[in-house]
Amino acid sequence: MLLNENRFFPINENSRSIAQRLFQEVEKLPIISPHGHTDPYWFAKNENFTNATDLLIIPDHYVLRMLISQGLKLEDLGVAKNNEESSKKDRREIWRLFAKNYYLFRSTPSRLWMNHTFEKLFGINKTLNEKTADYYFDHIGECLKKDEFRPREMYDKFNIELLSTTESALDDLKFHKSIKQSAWSGKVISTYRPDNVIDPDFDGFIQNIFKLAEITEEDITTWSGYLNAHKKRREYFISLGTTASDHGHPTANTADLSQSEASELYQKVITLKADNNEKELFRAQMLTEMAKMSIEDGLVMQIHPGSYRNHNTGIFDIFGRDKGFDIPQRTSFVDALKPLLNLLGMDIRLKIILFTLDESTYSRELAPLAGVYPCLKLGPAWWFHDSPNGMMRYRELVTESAGFYNTVGFNDDTRAFPSIPARHDVSRRVDCAFLANQVAKHIILEEEAKDIAVELAYKLAKVSYKL
Amino acid sequence: MLLNENRFFPINENSRSIAQRLFQEVEKLPIISPHGHTDPYWFAKNENFTNATDLLIIPDHYVLRMLISQGLKLEDLGVAKNNEESSKKDRREIWRLFAKNYYLFRSTPSRLWMNHTFEKLFGINKTLNEKTADYYFDHIGECLKKDEFRPREMYDKFNIELLSTTESALDDLKFHKSIKQSAWSGKVISTYRPDNVIDPDFDGFIQNIFKLAEITEEDITTWSGYLNAHKKRREYFISLGTTASDHGHPTANTADLSQSEASELYQKVITLKADNNEKELFRAQMLTEMAKMSIEDGLVMQIHPGSYRNHNTGIFDIFGRDKGFDIPQRTSFVDALKPLLNLLGMDIRLKIILFTLDESTYSRELAPLAGVYPCLKLGPAWWFHDSPNGMMRYRELVTESAGFYNTVGFNDDTRAFPSIPARHDVSRRVDCAFLANQVAKHIILEEEAKDIAVELAYKLAKVSYKL
Amino acid sequence: MLLNENRFFPINENSRSIAQRLFQEVEKLPIISPHGHTDPYWFAKNENFTNATDLLIIPDHYVLRMLISQGLKLEDLGVAKNNEESSKKDRREIWRLFAKNYYLFRSTPSRLWMNHTFEKLFGINKTLNEKTADYYFDHIGECLKKDEFRPREMYDKFNIELLSTTESALDDLKFHKSIKQSAWSGKVISTYRPDNVIDPDFDGFIQNIFKLAEITEEDITTWSGYLNAHKKRREYFISLGTTASDHGHPTANTADLSQSEASELYQKVITLKADNNEKELFRAQMLTEMAKMSIEDGLVMQIHPGSYRNHNTGIFDIFGRDKGFDIPQRTSFVDALKPLLNLLGMDIRLKIILFTLDESTYSRELAPLAGVYPCLKLGPAWWFHDSPNGMMRYRELVTESAGFYNTVGFNDDTRAFPSIPARHDVSRRVDCAFLANQVAKHIILEEEAKDIAVELAYKLAKVSYKL
Repeated sequence: MLLNENRFFPINENSRSIAQRLFQEVEKLPIISPHGHTDPYWFAKNENFTNATDLLIIPDHYVLRMLISQGLKLEDLGVAKNNEESSKKDRREIWRLFAKNYYLFRSTPSRLWMNHTFEKLFGINKTLNEKTADYYFDHIGECLKKDEFRPREMYDKFNIELLSTTESALDDLKFHKSIKQSAWSGKVISTYRPDNVIDPDFDGFIQNIFKLAEITEEDITTWSGYLNAHKKRREYFISLGTTASDHGHPTANTADLSQSEASELYQKVITLKADNNEKELFRAQMLTEMAKMSIEDGLVMQIHPGSYRNHNTGIFDIFGRDKGFDIPQRTSFVDALKPLLNLLGMDIRLKIILFTLDESTYSRELAPLAGVYPCLKLGPAWWFHDSPNGMMRYRELVTESAGFYNTVGFNDDTRAFPSIPARHDVSRRVDCAFLANQVAKHIILEEEAKDIAVELAYKLAKVSYKL
Repeated sequence: MLLNENRFFPINENSRSIAQRLFQEVEKLPIISPHGHTDPYWFAKNENFTNATDLLIIPDHYVLRMLISQGLKLEDLGVAKNNEESSKKDRREIWRLFAKNYYLFRSTPSRLWMNHTFEKLFGINKTLNEKTADYYFDHIGECLKKDEFRPREMYDKFNIELLSTTESALDDLKFHKSIKQSAWSGKVISTYRPDNVIDPDFDGFIQNIFKLAEITEEDITTWSGYLNAHKKRREYFISLGTTASDHGHPTANTADLSQSEASELYQKVITLKADNNEKELFRAQMLTEMAKMSIEDGLVMQIHPGSYRNHNTGIFDIFGRDKGFDIPQRTSFVDALKPLLNLLGMDIRLKIILFTLDESTYSRELAPLAGVYPCLKLGPAWWFHDSPNGMMRYRELVTESAGFYNTVGFNDDTRAFPSIPARHDVSRRVDCAFLANQVAKHIILEEEAKDIAVELAYKLAKVSYKL
Repeated sequence: MLLNENRFFPINENSRSIAQRLFQEVEKLPIISPHGHTDPYWFAKNENFTNATDLLIIPDHYVLRMLISQGLKLEDLGVAKNNEESSKKDRREIWRLFAKNYYLFRSTPSRLWMNHTFEKLFGINKTLNEKTADYYFDHIGECLKKDEFRPREMYDKFNIELLSTTESALDDLKFHKSIKQSAWSGKVISTYRPDNVIDPDFDGFIQNIFKLAEITEEDITTWSGYLNAHKKRREYFISLGTTASDHGHPTANTADLSQSEASELYQKVITLKADNNEKELFRAQMLTEMAKMSIEDGLVMQIHPGSYRNHNTGIFDIFGRDKGFDIPQRTSFVDALKPLLNLLGMDIRLKIILFTLDESTYSRELAPLAGVYPCLKLGPAWWFHDSPNGMMRYRELVTESAGFYNTVGFNDDTRAFPSIPARHDVSRRVDCAFLANQVAKHIILEEEAKDIAVELAYKLAKVSYKL
C-alpha cells in the first residue's frame, strides 16, 4: 500500500478520530475544479495518453525542478527545446531516471500526488524505485491503452462535476465548443486570462494586440476600442460557460486613472514608448478596468500576483516558459489594492479572489482585507504552498481574521490531470485535520465542523465561482 | 454550555493536564488591564447600558467588519453617519441580523469573546442563532436594567484590579477625576495619547495644536513652547494616575535631529509647509522627544505602529474612524528605531513597549531587539493577532530570543468592556497551553512553568507598566 | 537531572516513540562541524581553560545580550573595553551574577546548551541558581584544571570528526599548520572569510587591502592583481584543508559587471571615492567573483546575509564587535541572487549554501530557489533561529519545496566550544521529532525516516562541504 487511510490526519487519537468522521462527510463529494491548466484538447478529442513519462514527468514542472536541483538536465528529462517539436529522448530511460531519483521527493507534495495516482488510478502497490521502474512504465503504458484511461473516462472516474481550464484572451475555445456540442456530459469551461494582451512585457505583446483587433474587429489603436475588444472577448468566453477571469501580474498593483490619463498611457504602451513604471501602471489600471467590466458582466476576478517568472534567462531562452524557474517574491496588497478598493471595493456585485505566494501576507494583509471588503475572497494556498503544511498554515493564519466564509474552497490549479483527485484528497484531509483540531480545542462543535467541511470541500467553490 | 472547561488547552492528554494545573494558578488572579479603550464616562456615571445591540454590536469593529465582508452595510448595523448623532435603526432588528449571521464568526476570536460574555456575564447556555435571537435580546435587555450590570458592578464582578483607558493629549480627564473623587474603590487611569497633536496628518491637527496652546498656556509657535506643552499635559495626566503614553504612528520611524533642525522642522509643520517626508520625520523626531520626556517623568512609552488607518475613503467620509477598515502593513523596526536606540537605548530609566501587526517581525526583529536593549519590552499579540493561534505564534516566535521577562503580560486593548474577562481568559489559557507544551517537551520544569504563568497573567503587567 | 531523555521529542506518545527509535540511529554518530567560530589557538596549544566565567560567560554573546536586556552592564559581566586587554572584574562575582539571573534564560536555547554542558561535560545535576553558584564555579574550575578538560581531549570526548573554524583572508593559519603537524589526530580546518578585504565598510578596509598585497605579493592597485591576491589566499587556505568560503554581507546582492566596469568600480573603492551604492555594488560583484573562483578551485561558498551588525554605536565604540548587538533584518534573495544565478547558476561545479535570518524567506524564496537551481543548497536554521522551535519551523517551511537533499545538515556556528555537542544534540533531536511527525502522519515510512535522519545528522554535511 502506498497510501495510509489516515494520511495527513492529526497524530493525536482523539483529534484523529474526529478528522475521520469529518472526512466521511466530504470524501465522496464531487470535485469542483474552478481553476486549473489542463488541456481542453484532451476532453475534446478523448485520445489515449501515450506513456507514463509523457503523461506524468515531462509536463510536470514540480517534478522537473526537483530533478534539476540535484544536477539533472532538462534535455535529459525529455523537455523539448524551443526549436524542437518534441524531445527524442527515450521515454523509458527518462522514467528510469525519475524512478532512481524518486527518493528526492520524500516529504514533498509531488510524492503524495504521484503515489495517489499510482495506487488509485493505476492500482499499483509497490514503491517506485530503480528496481520497479520498468514494471511501472510497462504497467502504466498498458493501462493507458485502455478506453477507461482516456481523458473523459478519467474525468468521470474522478467524480469531477466541473473543470475549468484557462485560456488566453486570444483563444478561439474551439475545444470547449466541441466538448459542449458533444454527447459527453462532462462540464469543461474556460477562464478568461488576458495577460498576453494586458502585460506590455509579455512575449509578443504587440502582435497579440493586433490579433485581438482582428478577432474582435475593434479599433485597438484607441483606448475605448481596446476596452471594447476585452468586453467582446469576455462575452464570447461567457457564452461558452466561463464565469471567471484570471490575472497573473507580477504585483497586485491597481490604479484609478482618469479616462484621459488612461487613454494617454495606452497610447504610450502600444507605441512601445512606455517605460517600466508606465508598464506597471498600465497593468495596474487594467486590473481596475477588468473589475469595472466584472461588475457589468459578472465574471469573478482572480488575481495571482507575486511570481518572478522565468528567473533563469538561459533556461528561458532554450526551453521557454513553465519549466520550474518561476520563483515567489515578496508581495504587498494593502497599498497595491487601494485604488481599486476605494473605487469599487464596497460594490457587492464585484467578486475578486486573491492568491499569494508570500505567506507573510496571510495574517498581515489578506485576512484583514478579506475580513472587511465585501468584494474580496481568499483563494486557497497556492502553488508552492499547495501542500499539507502549506494548507495547514493557510487555515491557521487566515481563519481567525477572515473566517471560513471569506475563503473559496480548493483550487487544484494543475496541468497534471491525473493528479486532480490526489490534490483534492490532500486538501479535504488537511481541512478536516484543521477542523478536528478546532473541535478538540473546543473552539467549534463537531456538528459545526461537519457543515464547514462540506463548505470547504464543495459548496464554497460553487458559490464563489458562480457555478 | 457555550464554553468547555478545556478550551484552548493542548489536545494531547498529558500536556492538557499540565495546562489544567497551570491554569489553576492563574484563573482567579485579578485582571490588570494596562492598555485599552473603554469609555471612562461609564465608570464615572455608572449608568445602565441600554440593550444588547448598543452594548455588543454597534461599537465592536471586529463584529462590524465580518458582517460587512459578507455584504451587510454599516447603516443596516446601526452605525451612525458622520452627520447623525445616532442611527435610528431598530436595535432588535440589528440583533436579529447579527444572530442570523453568527455562524460567520466560527473559529474567530469574536465568537470566543461573545460566547464567554453570553455564558459568564448573562448566564446564557443556548447557541445564538436566528431562533434564539429574540430570547437573547430580551434576556440581555432585562439583565442590563439591573444594578449588578452597571459598569462599576461589572468591573468588580470581573475582578479587575486596574483598568487603563486612553485619552488624547487634549482631554480634560474630567471623568477620571470624578472616578477618583468617588467613593468607589475601582482604579481607572488614563494613558497619554498625543497622536492628534503630533501627527500632522491627523484630522484637525492645527486646531488641535491651538487647543493644546490654550490648555497649557504655552507659546506653541515655538519648538520649546510646544515641547513644554507636552510636558505640562504629561504632568497633568500623571497627577491623575497615568503611568504610560501611547503612540499610534504609521511606522516605527524615529529620528535624532539637532534642536535647531527640529525647531525648523516644527515651523514647517505648523505652517503647513511640510511635505510627506517632513511630516514623517516630524513624527519620528517626536517619538524621540517623548522618550526623552519619559526618562524625566517616568511614563512608559507604548509604540503601536503599522496600521493603515481608514483604508476605504468612502467609508471614512461617511462613517468616520474605527469602523473596521484599518489594515495592517509590513513594518520595520531595525533601521526605524536606531536613532532613538542609539541616543537613549541603553538608559535603564527608559521603558518602551513595542507592538506589531506584522508577525514576520517577531522572530526577525522584535525578539532580537528586546533581547538586548534594556529599554525595550514586547507588548502582547495585538489586534488581529489577539486570538488563540495569534497568541501561540507570538510565544513560539518570541520566547527563544527574548525569553519571558522581556514581555509585558497581556493587554486586552478593547473598546468592548464586557469582553475584558473573556480576553484575559483566552490569554491565560493560551499561555498555559504554551507553557504546558514546554514542560511536556522537557524544556522547562512544571514548577518553573507555574512561576512563569503567574508572571504572564499578572505580575509582568504590573511591573512593566509601573502599576 | 538537568536533561530529560525525551527532551524536544513530540508530545504525542506514538510520535515520540518513533522519534526515540530514529534518534537511536543518530545519537552516537560523530559530529561534523563544518562551520563555526572556535579558536584554533585552543587546539594548537591545548592549554587548560581557566574558569567557568571566562569559558562560558564572557565570550558568549547570547548570554551577554539576555543579561544586558534586563539592565546589567557589559562592564559588570567582565567584557573588556576596546582600550583594555581584559577586564579586571572578579570572575566569581560575574558567575554569581549569571547564576542569580539564570531564570531569565528559561525556554531559550542558551539554557538548553548550558544545562547540557553542565550535566554532560561537568557531571552536574543541580539546578544553577544563586545558592548553587559557588558550587558550580568551584566544581567547573576544578574540572578545567584536569588534562581531560583540555581542548583536544574535549574534542575527542565530544566525538568530533571534523571541526572548521573561520579565519579572515589575512590570517596566516599558523595554528592550523601547527595542529596539522602535531601528533594529534583531530581534524581542524579553516574557512576562507574575506569580508575584511571585500567590504569597503569594514573597519580598516584599506589597511587590510595593503596587508593582502604584502602577503600575496600582488599589485592590488589593479583589479586583476586584487583578484589574483584572492586566488592565492584561497589556494593557501585550501593547502591546509579548507573546503569552503564564507561571506557575511549585509545583503545577498550579486552583480554581473563587465570586467572594465568592475575594474573601474574597484578603483573607486580603493581610492575611497565609492559612495554607498557603489560599495554595495562592489560587494555584490565580489560574490560573483568568488563564485567564479569556486568553480575553478572547488571551494563551497556560504552566504550569510541580513545581519545589521553593531546596531548600537555607543556599545560598538566602547566594546567593539560581537557583543550581542547584531540584529536580523528583512532579506531578499530572488532579485538579489539573479545576476549570479543567471551567469553561473546552472553550473553543477558550483555549490552555494544560503543562510537567512529572515524566516519569511524560507518558504517564499529559499526553498523554491534551492528546489530548482543545482548550485544552491540551504544552510540550517541560523543564529537566532538555531533553537528547537526555529529548527522545527525551518523543516516545516523548507521541506515541501526543497526536500531534504537540498539542505546541508547542521552547523553549530559557535564560538562556545563546550556547547558543540549540546547544539548537535538539539538539532538531531528536533530533526527526529520532525521526521517522527512525518511518519505518524503517513507522509513517509519509518524506514525512510531512518535514512533521512542519518543524512541530516551526518552525511549531508560531509557531502555538502566536500569533507
